[in-house]
This record gives sequence, structure tokens and C-alpha cells, in this order.
Amino acid sequence: MKVEGVHYRSIWFEESSGSIKAIDQTLLPHEFSVITLSTLDDVCHAIKSMQVRGAPLIGVTAAFGLYLALKENPDGLHTAAEKLAATRPTAVNLRWALNRVIQELENSQGDALKSALETALQICEEDIQTCSNIGDYGLELLEKINQEKPVNNEVVNILTHCNAGWLATVDWGTALAPVYKAHDAGLPVHVWVDETRPRNQGASLTAWELSRHGVSHTVISDNAGGHLMQQGRVDICLVGSDRTTRFGDVCNKIGTYLKALAAHDNDIPFYVALPVSSIDWEGVEIPIEERDSEELTHIHGLNSQGLPDKLRLTPVESPVLNLGFDVTPGRLVSGLITEQGIFTADEAGLIRLKKTLDDHL
Amino acid sequence: MKVEGVHYRSIWFEESSGSIKAIDQTLLPHEFSVITLSTLDDVCHAIKSMQVRGAPLIGVTAAFGLYLALKENPDGLHTAAEKLAATRPTAVNLRWALNRVIQELENSQGDALKSALETALQICEEDIQTCSNIGDYGLELLEKINQEKPVNNEVVNILTHCNAGWLATVDWGTALAPVYKAHDAGLPVHVWVDETRPRNQGASLTAWELSRHGVSHTVISDNAGGHLMQQGRVDICLVGSDRTTRFGDVCNKIGTYLKALAAHDNDIPFYVALPVSSIDWEGVEIPIEERDSEELTHIHGLNSQGLPDKLRLTPVESPVLNLGFDVTPGRLVSGLITEQGIFTADEAGLIRLKKTLDDHL
Repeated sequence: MKVEGVHYRSIWFEESSGSIKAIDQTLLPHEFSVITLSTLDDVCHAIKSMQVRGAPLIGVTAAFGLYLALKENPDGLHTAAEKLAATRPTAVNLRWALNRVIQELENSQGDALKSALETALQICEEDIQTCSNIGDYGLELLEKINQEKPVNNEVVNILTHCNAGWLATVDWGTALAPVYKAHDAGLPVHVWVDETRPRNQGASLTAWELSRHGVSHTVISDNAGGHLMQQGRVDICLVGSDRTTRFGDVCNKIGTYLKALAAHDNDIPFYVALPVSSIDWEGVEIPIEERDSEELTHIHGLNSQGLPDKLRLTPVESPVLNLGFDVTPGRLVSGLITEQGIFTADEAGLIRLKKTLDDHL
Repeated sequence: MKVEGVHYRSIWFEESSGSIKAIDQTLLPHEFSVITLSTLDDVCHAIKSMQVRGAPLIGVTAAFGLYLALKENPDGLHTAAEKLAATRPTAVNLRWALNRVIQELENSQGDALKSALETALQICEEDIQTCSNIGDYGLELLEKINQEKPVNNEVVNILTHCNAGWLATVDWGTALAPVYKAHDAGLPVHVWVDETRPRNQGASLTAWELSRHGVSHTVISDNAGGHLMQQGRVDICLVGSDRTTRFGDVCNKIGTYLKALAAHDNDIPFYVALPVSSIDWEGVEIPIEERDSEELTHIHGLNSQGLPDKLRLTPVESPVLNLGFDVTPGRLVSGLITEQGIFTADEAGLIRLKKTLDDHL
């Protein structure tokens, strides 16, 4: 989407240098900077340190990581895949992207390096198409809400948690794809942006990308969404998902479950937007990533001199627990918006989705 | 309660100077500092800037404020009361404390200044007794949970939001009074402390007072409580209240409603601890305070040099909305713990409480 009027992707291949370029998301919203990934280690560091983050983008980045690994060591494919898979335990399409590249290489007879790059680039293009399709299906929901408003063409208020925008993918985003589609089509939308502690992806990334593309939005604390729903100031919740089970349970950024409860209590539709590649067709237990406690004890921002700085928040003596994700039961989810259409968040819905996929094969 | 082994109150009268002393809560947890309030303006500033905060403590401070106002101007009682009442619109026992002093002065024939001070001191002592009683009633709930645990004398896990500890009152606290009573009685307790954005009263005040008194606790993001409840890691939620309606609806720090929903969804008891003085027997509509947006766009903490500093979090172009409170419907509240006992959070419970009060008159 757009930054100061120029169209950007979150990640791209630079032909001239043979390296990968990506927006450094740890510096946003205060600094827009592009990093160069030239080695497997660069990629592992970028994913671990969350310079790139968001389930779909992690998958694409990992695919590029295999290409860079092969460049360094033509025999290093499987070691590299293991190393990449270990960077973030919750994201299911990280593994999906790695397997996709590995399978492609196993099937191809030609140049492995060329084949790895082509597959990574293809995953990249497919991700954009996937998000665009999610956007089109989600747009129908927003148009319906807009049409049913008592006042003609009244603003549709969307609440979102964390960042499931174009920065979490290659372009468009998942939860925010319908918002961008609506905005670009002239449908009046406004987004309530959950700050999303502890890493503040809402306040820093979602707010940044919406403001740069010119979409009306307001940042709120994670505590405020329930009250806004009680007040009738939210028409629909749209969030992303790191992993969705075959029963329709949704693993997403910690705090998603609380918003789903509030939406349910106030009869507000709660939709989850996700690429099919993030569905875990096998597992039942979802491992919840416990992250560094410093994300909670300290916070990053710009100091009064306009320089990036870090402050301590909690008393030194107080232990903290920093859980990255929670699981929203499918019973609280109005529907799953995928690139194949909208499905109910239960076993029947997932079976129907699986059938749609199989029919396309 | 205790700070480095010494017993403190959050506010006290200093006989030698005729002034009021209070702990400056804006500097906690990084600096323990006592401020002197000598004038009405000092008191208004202390309440507005949240150097003193918490519904019961605001009431006590406002009562002392009327004493200081009379010292400055013997005819200034009603102007002072109006000024004090305007400092925080949501706190109902701020008004209650002001009315109490005014009525006392109207009824007394003697020295108004002396009478104002005596009433303020009496409110102070009564608040301590009230909180101690709340603690005793709440302790019974914790003992019962402890006894019903499958493992002998297993730790009771309490989740709390914001700060309803001794810093929010004169001593003991409301929601934390049962915790201190349990800790002092040797009952094993552990408190999950919600960070409580945007002002972080949990991470800064609750964590500080629990650590100083030696109570086991862990700071979590506001987003994490629902997940911990799903995991069976919370036995009971205990929160305070700024205002409780005669229907049992509870106005408390923004985000309380979300935790009540999660407790309800996971069949975990959700209790609200409050002094009877914070009940609004008349009103139905609760005004929700919209606070300065800078509380959300910026954050305070200690920088790497160990000095208090402030960082900008959100993009400059992004609007924010900072709501201070939400309303938890009585249907989500297991009970109201008051100094008169535990009552159901509905009209019947409040009528029963009113009757108990009337019987004591």
C-alpha cells in the first residue's frame, strides 16, 4: 500500500544485488528504514527480532531465507529449514512456506538456487493475490453494514487488534485488506486501533500504515474496546490469525480472545481474516510462545530529543510473564474470511473449506 | 501497609506543620517521595495530576482539602467544595466526603476549622476500618478457595486490574485488602497484576505495593488475563470500583469489563470490593471521564541513566481516544464485597445492603 503517495511492499527481491529488501518494522512508526537481507543469519535475525513479523510475511521471508542459505551452501537446505522453523514457534505458515520450497526443489531437476528463488517469488505474488481476495470477500461484509446503517452512507467502524495489515503480509494485509479495499472504493470507514501491548504493534504499525495510506483511524488502549462496543461505537471486529485449527479455534495476538468475548456480549460480528496456508489441519494443541520479559518491563519510543530510547516501566523486584498469543474459541468467531470465501469457524466450516480446496486441485 | 519494613499510610496529617502529607503516586514505582499539601490548590493539583488517586483516597484527600481551604478563607467552603468536586467527575465518594464535611460544619456550633479537620481525620480512620472489614470478608472467600483446592494448601491465584490496594485508600486497600489479610495470616496467595494501560497503575502501583509488603505477584499485560483464565491459572478476580449503581453495575478502570467477561466465560468468580460510600444510590447514567490523550501517545518510565523520562509511542498523525472507565454489568459480578458483608450485584442485593445500613442507624 502507499507511503507518502508511493506504493510499497513490505518485502521484495533486489535483482541488482541478489539480496532481499524489507521494511524494518522495529523502527516504525518513528523511522521508515529499509534493511538488506543477504544471508541465512540475516533472515533468522530479522524474523526473531521482529524486523519482519506477521504470519504471512514470516512465511515469505523464510522462503527467501532458503534461497539465501542455498547461495551460501548448496548442501545446507535442511539445516537452514530447521533453523528458520525455530525462529517463531507459533506461526504455522512459516513451516508451510519452508515445506513448499523444499518440495519444489525435490521435484525440480534444474538449478536448485534458481528454483528456490522462483518459488519464493511465487509465494510472494500468491500472498498478494491471497490478501487481495480476502479483501474482496471482507469488503462485501463492510458494504452490507454500510447499506444497513440507518443514516445514508454512514461511516463503518471497524475494531482491529495487533497488526494484520499490509506490513504483516507482502501487500494489502489480511484483516485490513477489506479496509483498504473499502477506502480505495470510497466506502467511508474508520478503524479503532488497539494499541496491542506489550509490543504495541497496533499503536506503531497499524496506526502508521493506516495514516500513511490516508485511512481514518483512532488509537485506543487494549482496555477500551469493550466499552466502545457497549456504546455501539463498533460495527465489526476484524483481526488476523497466526494459526487456525480444523475446529475453527483461532490463535492470534494475546488479547484477541477478550475482544471476541466483548463482541459476542454485544452482538457485534467478529471476523477473522486469514490465508488458508495458516490453517493447522493436523494439530489440536497450539503451543503458546512465551516471549522475553523485557517486552513488558521496558518500552521503546521516541524521547524528547526525537531519538529512539527505552524506558523501564515495572519495579525491578516484580516478576513478569509475557505470553504472545491466546486462543479464541470458534464459537466466538462469526466467520473466517479466506481467499476462498467466508466459512464458519467450526469443524463443518473447515471441512467445507477443505472441500473447496480439493475441488480446485 | 509496609514499605521496607516500615508501616505507612498513603496520606496523613502532620500536626507540627498543620499540613497534609501524602505519597506522590506519580513517581512510583521508581521513586518513593512524600509531598506536602498546604493549600486548596495543592490538593486540587494533587487529585487532578493523580499524585493521589483511587476513589477512597480521593475522598479523604478532598476532605482534608476543605480543611485547608477554610484555613485560607473562612468563607470559602462552598467554592472550595465545587472546585474539589470538579477535579475528577467519576469518583462518587469524592462528593460523598465533601458533603460529609459540609454537613458536619452545618451541624456544629463550634470552631469550623477544628471541626473540618476532625471530620477529615475521622473519615481517614473510618476508611481504614472499612478497608479492614472488606479485607476480613474477602479473606473468607480466599480461605474457601484454598480449602477446596485438590492439593493441600495450594497457592490461591488472584487476578486484579488497576490499583485498588492501600495506595488507593488510606491503608489495606479494597480489592487487595483480602490479599494482605491472607498474606499476613500465612495463607499462600499469588497476584496476577494487570499492567493497566494507559497509566499503568498495575505495573507501577500494585506491583510496587505488593513487592514492598512481600506478597508474591507477577505483572502481565492487560491482554493476558483471558488466556490465563482459560488455562485455569486464575482462581478469583478481585477488583475495586469507582462507582457502583443501585442495580449492581460497576464503574471501574477501563478494561475491567473485559476481565469480567473472561471470568464469566471460564466460570471463575469475579468479585468487586468497595466501600459503601462509593455506591451511587441515585444515578443511573455514569459519566465516563475522557482523559488527556497524552496518557496514550506518551509513556513515563526510567531511562537507561535511571532518570524519569517520557517517550512518544504513537505516530504524530494518528488521533487517539483515552477513556478512563468502563461499566461492568452486575450480571457478570459474583458479588460485592463491602464493609457490611458480601452482597449480590443486583437491585435485590443493593436493597439488602441498604437495609443493613438503615438497621445500623
